[in-house]
Amino acid sequence: MNANRRIVLASRPAGAASADNFRLESVPVPEPRPGQVLVRHHYLSLDPYMRGRMNDAKSYAPPQPLGEVMVGGTAGEVIASRHPAFRAGERVVGMGGWQEFALVDEPEQALERVDTTHVPLSAYLGPVGMPGITAWYGLSMILRPKPGETLVVSAASGAVGSVVGQLAKWRGCRVVGFAGGPAKCDYAVRELGFDACIDYKAAHDARSLDAALAAAAPAGVDACFENVGGRCLDATLGRMNAFGRIALCGLIAGFEAGPVPITNPGPILRARLAVQGFIIFEHRELWPWAVSELASAVAAGRLRYRETIAEGLERAPAAFLGLLRGENFGKQLVRLA
Amino acid sequence: MNANRRIVLASRPAGAASADNFRLESVPVPEPRPGQVLVRHHYLSLDPYMRGRMNDAKSYAPPQPLGEVMVGGTAGEVIASRHPAFRAGERVVGMGGWQEFALVDEPEQALERVDTTHVPLSAYLGPVGMPGITAWYGLSMILRPKPGETLVVSAASGAVGSVVGQLAKWRGCRVVGFAGGPAKCDYAVRELGFDACIDYKAAHDARSLDAALAAAAPAGVDACFENVGGRCLDATLGRMNAFGRIALCGLIAGFEAGPVPITNPGPILRARLAVQGFIIFEHRELWPWAVSELASAVAAGRLRYRETIAEGLERAPAAFLGLLRGENFGKQLVRLA
Repeated sequence: MNANRRIVLASRPAGAASADNFRLESVPVPEPRPGQVLVRHHYLSLDPYMRGRMNDAKSYAPPQPLGEVMVGGTAGEVIASRHPAFRAGERVVGMGGWQEFALVDEPEQALERVDTTHVPLSAYLGPVGMPGITAWYGLSMILRPKPGETLVVSAASGAVGSVVGQLAKWRGCRVVGFAGGPAKCDYAVRELGFDACIDYKAAHDARSLDAALAAAAPAGVDACFENVGGRCLDATLGRMNAFGRIALCGLIAGFEAGPVPITNPGPILRARLAVQGFIIFEHRELWPWAVSELASAVAAGRLRYRETIAEGLERAPAAFLGLLRGENFGKQLVRLA
Repeated sequence: MNANRRIVLASRPAGAASADNFRLESVPVPEPRPGQVLVRHHYLSLDPYMRGRMNDAKSYAPPQPLGEVMVGGTAGEVIASRHPAFRAGERVVGMGGWQEFALVDEPEQALERVDTTHVPLSAYLGPVGMPGITAWYGLSMILRPKPGETLVVSAASGAVGSVVGQLAKWRGCRVVGFAGGPAKCDYAVRELGFDACIDYKAAHDARSLDAALAAAAPAGVDACFENVGGRCLDATLGRMNAFGRIALCGLIAGFEAGPVPITNPGPILRARLAVQGFIIFEHRELWPWAVSELASAVAAGRLRYRETIAEGLERAPAAFLGLLRGENFGKQLVRLA
């Protein structure tokens, strides 16, 4: 425990991200000064938003600085505290970054104590953490689906999509997913309870994707939770019912190869759609409401989720690049302790 | 007055609309039966939405039937009435279509009496009619700009855009237009009071259009009233500020050559934009509020507008095709009497 291994952004991607953009470093584990706590990370969360931060582009957040520890959500344990409100042994979630230990200033702002009696620690990075809260917010605050409406969600088996679909089922919707490959689609239908899940990789052109969606959503689409963009969004737009809503949560299709257009924006006008982009970090005031519903559902075994766990910090870059290619299945984590 | 000349849809366009899609017919002027009135049209309004109706495609309204009189807004005079609430000589506005006379059932629903004491009859098809109300609704109900915000409107010198810009100026916005050619841009700035107007025809690529918008909107764009789509929308999206709003009113760029994509939807997510499509015919309950503000402003000479008037029904198809190519200047009308 004398070394803190960490991964910094070594260079910005020109095109697709690669392992060369990251650098593993080893530095001494710091000692907390008064008011600080030292956290040992058990899990690092890997999420698509990180790809956006690697670019030096105008966005809602400043770019990840070069040479500094990659940003990232973490779950771990306080191992030393010089803050009166924290004790060693407490389980906490924060934005500790891609490293094994984190020294935390102002821990009352930066850390959230979590109760692992009935909810596993890792779930606080998945269904009960940022991805689950993202699903809850987009569904409850933007899409507001009514019972009987049809909802489409892309990246259906992913950390966000899997929660969107289950919450929408509980709210009485017909739920149709898009996912890549038969295993993810089977999982969405059999384990998560989706009404249908379309394997977009099996649909080789826009026409066949549209036909698959028409069959899965015979009454059209009222609400779309969009994580991906590109051809699935194009197909969904063409099937939207009047006054439909689209919550734009992610556009992972455009992260690597450059922007993926909306081929035909006509339905936004003709169907009088409302399209709303959102960033979950801006809605902290609602997180407790979301966590309350999500934690109860996980504790009760009602909210299902799946994790892909890479072992060891050194595997984080490869796992992250795999996430961008859709190779993970469910929430992508890195185990650090 | 024994013949009613009318234009029907002869065929649906395959690609761009052409004069062949229309047929001029002459039929006897009908006699009103009990409960009906006969209206002689003075003006026919030509509007982009008509192009959408010519296609046999799913939209908010059923397609224009083949062989029937083209849909269209009209302003005219009651010349014979067998309805107790209407008298010959009254000025009325309705959806009489591309014809010189219209027999109107249920005139209390289908016709609006208008006061031409201080407002010219033709203005009820322009700034005080559907285009002006469209501008008022999108601005007041969707964009809701605050003083000091920057608003962009495409087709700036058109029937809708010219009203959007003037209303936004009165609400304290910086207003930037897009229009085709120096004459329309000069008009928007000098006559309508826009802060700037960009001649998109003079910007030969995306980079120069973006540079022109960056110069005209140095604080970014908070609200966009979109009538056109395509490259102006692409440029605007790239300059939108956080929590910006886009009212999607028209996509005339895609009417003829097929859908024009949104090249990069990324800003909708990154800037957390709200994009809302709307159809003014669905918000009739608000029309009196809009007309009240618009009619006062026209009567006072404060709301400026410009008309392009084709003489005679037989010129309606050519005028309409010109409208789709942006050849009109301001509101396109056809004088029928």
